[in-house]
Parts: sequence; structure tokens; C-alpha cells
Amino acid sequence: MIPTHQDIAAACRRVKTYVHRTPVLTSTLLNELSGSNLYFKCENFQKMGAFKMRGAVNAIQQLSEPQKKAGVVTHSSGNFAQAVSLAARNLGVKAYIVMPTNAPSVKKAAVKDYGGLISECEPTLEAREAAAQQIVQKYGATFLHPSNDLNVILGNATATVELLEDYSDLDCVFSPIGGGGLIAGTALSAHYFGSNCGEPREADDAFRSLASGKIETNETAFTIADGLRTQLGDINFPIIKNLVSEIIRVEEDDIVRAMRLVWERLKIVIEPSSAVPVAALLSNKNRFQNKKIGIILSGGNIDVENLPFGIPK
Amino acid sequence: MIPTHQDIAAACRRVKTYVHRTPVLTSTLLNELSGSNLYFKCENFQKMGAFKMRGAVNAIQQLSEPQKKAGVVTHSSGNFAQAVSLAARNLGVKAYIVMPTNAPSVKKAAVKDYGGLISECEPTLEAREAAAQQIVQKYGATFLHPSNDLNVILGNATATVELLEDYSDLDCVFSPIGGGGLIAGTALSAHYFGSNCGEPREADDAFRSLASGKIETNETAFTIADGLRTQLGDINFPIIKNLVSEIIRVEEDDIVRAMRLVWERLKIVIEPSSAVPVAALLSNKNRFQNKKIGIILSGGNIDVENLPFGIPK
Repeated sequence: MIPTHQDIAAACRRVKTYVHRTPVLTSTLLNELSGSNLYFKCENFQKMGAFKMRGAVNAIQQLSEPQKKAGVVTHSSGNFAQAVSLAARNLGVKAYIVMPTNAPSVKKAAVKDYGGLISECEPTLEAREAAAQQIVQKYGATFLHPSNDLNVILGNATATVELLEDYSDLDCVFSPIGGGGLIAGTALSAHYFGSNCGEPREADDAFRSLASGKIETNETAFTIADGLRTQLGDINFPIIKNLVSEIIRVEEDDIVRAMRLVWERLKIVIEPSSAVPVAALLSNKNRFQNKKIGIILSGGNIDVENLPFGIPK
Repeated sequence: MIPTHQDIAAACRRVKTYVHRTPVLTSTLLNELSGSNLYFKCENFQKMGAFKMRGAVNAIQQLSEPQKKAGVVTHSSGNFAQAVSLAARNLGVKAYIVMPTNAPSVKKAAVKDYGGLISECEPTLEAREAAAQQIVQKYGATFLHPSNDLNVILGNATATVELLEDYSDLDCVFSPIGGGGLIAGTALSAHYFGSNCGEPREADDAFRSLASGKIETNETAFTIADGLRTQLGDINFPIIKNLVSEIIRVEEDDIVRAMRLVWERLKIVIEPSSAVPVAALLSNKNRFQNKKIGIILSGGNIDVENLPFGIPK
């Protein structure tokens, strides 16, 4: 049930020519500030700007030829939509994308640039799933779930494999958790090292799920980390339950502060979801003194006209 | 009068252990958009966030021991102030910094963090020079000019030396021009390749100076590229006159658009001054088709609470 090292190695071979091997950045100043040694895996520099390219490429490559011919469909608040659009185009496959009406404009524009065919729907999980099902029935397209799909999880896992190839002696890896697809992949790859992650307190279903042992849902999810509003699934949850050491909840203000710190000090553009594991570390830094910590910066797609930096430092 | 290759090589040896060798980034998308091959020298990743660290380190190292003991003083709208503060601290020297009252808050805070001693003054060149002279007289400190100083210019030149070590076959190098210290250093290092640069049309003294053959001034300078409002000096102008191929003036809207493009596509934080050479290239792209072009991204220090992205794409 839980994928093997061989499964992950096969995913690495599969995605290699279709994704960037992203750099790992370090910062003396952020090390001083945290009291630990931080290794930032920069998936904001990934193709289409986020780790989701990895899962999309791996999942589409696993389709049969007739499936590839009929195309793929997904619903996403943004990054997975771009990832499926670009991965599909690069693999010669048609991509139908269901997006909520409130998705950031920069993300919608990028999907169109990458050749994705957009259908808009209301910003609820039900509306998204219904719209995607219609496209499955109409075109015979294969539905790709952004996070609750084993091949997506295995693709996502390749980011942490690269990080651990570069720095094999990390004490733990922090990753954001939303739908559970990145943290499941990260936990698989970090297996022997122990893995930690962060999620916004405003959408803390994963924290509660780990505590209760079953998938819990969010009644509301007003976090700025729009990529993390989604919920766990039955495919990624068993992996998370077995392999994730801990889920740390963070406050909205801490997310904005962490994002600002990365922008100002690392001089790189990250989206709010990427700042969540940084915030998780900084608000618990006493527990991680002198540790070597990998942090997955999941993506850098942000609408620069709607930035959250009104909040004082 | 014009420094030799040996002078630049000596500066490279001098600054090496005190500055980062910054990466050179490329982007398939920006290459497609421009029709040329762009090599971005990322001085936004330099220590204290800008190329100015190079000039400050080189200039302070050239002081005598008694001069080092008495400290250094400079006036700057921001980046050179941070550079002198940090370089001085790393070399065990005291740094007095004259800053205009309207300097971005993030830059003032950084100067304090780096141990610089700030004196505020009115935002005019006259007020800055007077305040710096007072400190020279009071403490015996050595005045360091942000751009019209041969050792500063030689330090700045080391960025383009590194760029050309990484990519020796560039057709030209674009750099922003403000006080003339970066473009003079860039032009020295790019000597055998031909060099181009950009400046805001709202502060086009360098363009007019190159046309008239003597140093022209700006009556007003309302450009967003706050690092480029300063004027040429008698030490850097002879180098610029002899070695800079062309000065391209750019519009304010084009600066903001170029900055946004770099943020959204390269996922790195650059300040408006750094976007000027990108804007210069993009607004003249027909002339540079299929060329290999180095672009000096001069810095990444920006006040994230005051971003210019209201302007539509």
C-alpha cells in the first residue's frame, strides 16, 4: 500500500527530462535568525513556478496511449492547473482545466499561456468535482487529482530526493500541507530522516486528522495560503499517518512575516503556501536549534497586484 | 587615466573573500520573449543585496591603517550605505552614513543592522555633501563616494569579470546607469565585447552627457528607479565616454513592466534600478535579435510595502 523506494526511483527517472533540478539556497542571516541550518529547496524556480509540475508529469506519463489521446482533466485553485497544462502540452496531450472563479488572475492567465482549456466553476469542492466529472463524461478525459493520486504523490516525492542527494545529512524536512500530495511525497522520500511540516491554523484539517487517525475536514478555510485550503484524501492520508512525524499549525500573521523575510533576505519570490513551513520553523525554533533542516519552498506563483504586506513586521 | 586589466584583476583578488560569486540565471521564456539569449548576473543575491558591496570592499581595503582607524563616511540613498556599513564591519572599520530623510525604511533598518551610524539630512545632493563633510572634519573619517571613486569603480567591475568568466562569448552587457559607478566598472570589464546600458528617461543626464561630451545634470529626477537619480562624476565620466557604446533611455511604465516580468518569470526580487537594463533591452529588442546579452541585475533591496504594481500589464 505504501510505495517503495523503487517506485520513487522510477518516478525520478520518469520526470528527469521534463522538470528542472532546482537549486538549494542557504542564508547565513536566516541561519542566525533561526539558530539552525536551513536548506531551501527552491521549487519556486520549477517549470511553471511550482513543485506540482513533478506530479503532473509523472501522472500523465503513466497513462495508456488511448488515455493520452482523450486528454486529461483536473480542478485546481491554480498551480496544479498550470502544471497539468504545461506537462500535458510537453507530452502532446490535451488538458481540460476546471478553475474556481476566484482563482488569482495571474494563475488563470498562465493556464491559458500553457495551452490549458479552462472551464470556470463556483469556488467549492463540490462544484469543482461536478464540473470535472462532466468533462470526463463528455470527452473521455482521465481525471487527475491534484493531491490524492499515487502517481502525483510519487512525482512530488522527487523534489525531496534531489534535496537529499545534495544534502544527505538533514535532520528533518519541512513541507507545507494542503491536500496532502506534497507532504506525502516528501515524507516518503524523507522516510529515514524524519519529516516535519506546517499547515495554516485557519485550515488545520491535517493536524486534526493526524490526531484523530481519520480524515477531518475544514468547515471554513480563510487562510492566505490559498494552495493549502484543500483537504486530505484516502490515498495520501495512509502515507501521511505512517510517515509524517508532526504537523505544526501556524498563524496567518506568521505566514506573512515568513514570506516577507524570504523575499527580503533570500531575494526570491515565493507564494504564501511556501512560507508556511518557514513560519512553522520560526515559531518553534527553540526545538530545532543546531539542526539541519530542509525546507520545501513549494512555489512562487503570486498575483503581485494583491500582496499581503500591509501587516507590520 | 583609464584603469588597466591588471587593476581590475587586483580588485578581483582583493574582494574575493568578502563578496558572493553570484549566480547567472537564464530563462527560456524571457529568451523567447526578447528573441535574444539573456544571462542575468544576479547581484540582488550579493551580500547586503546589491553590487555595491563590491565597490565598498575594494575601496576600504585600499585605505591606510590610520585611515581605517578613523573610519569612513558616505552619503547614499540606500544601497551604498548598506554596503559601506557591512564592508566596514567585516574589515573592522567604523562607518558613518549620511542618508536622506526620504530613503526607504527597509534600507535605513538594514544600515542599522549592519552597524552603520546614521545621520539624516534633506534629500538634496548639497545637504548630503555638507553633512558628510562635517563628519570628515569632526572624526577625520575618509569620505567614500558611491560612484565617483576609482576604487569603487574597480570593485564594481568585478561583477562583469565573473559574468564573462561564466559566459565568455557575450555580444554585449547591459547595466543600469545612475551615478556612473556601475556602468564605468561594467564598461571596463566588458571592454573587448562592447557594452550597452540603460537609464530612466526621467533622469537622463548620462544620455545627454554622452551626446554633449561633458557632464550634464538632471533638473528633476522623479524616476521610480531611486538608485539611478544621481549624476555622473569626473572620475567615472572619462571611462564612460571612452568605453560605453550607447545609453538607452527607458520610460517609467516600461521599468515597472520589466520588473514585474522578472519577478513573475525568474521568481527573484529585484529593485526598480535593476529592471532598467531589462526594460532597455525589451523596448529595443529588434536590434538585439539572436544576440547573447549579459544583464547586470544590480540589486534586490525594496520596500515591500510600497510596490509599484498598480500599473496594468
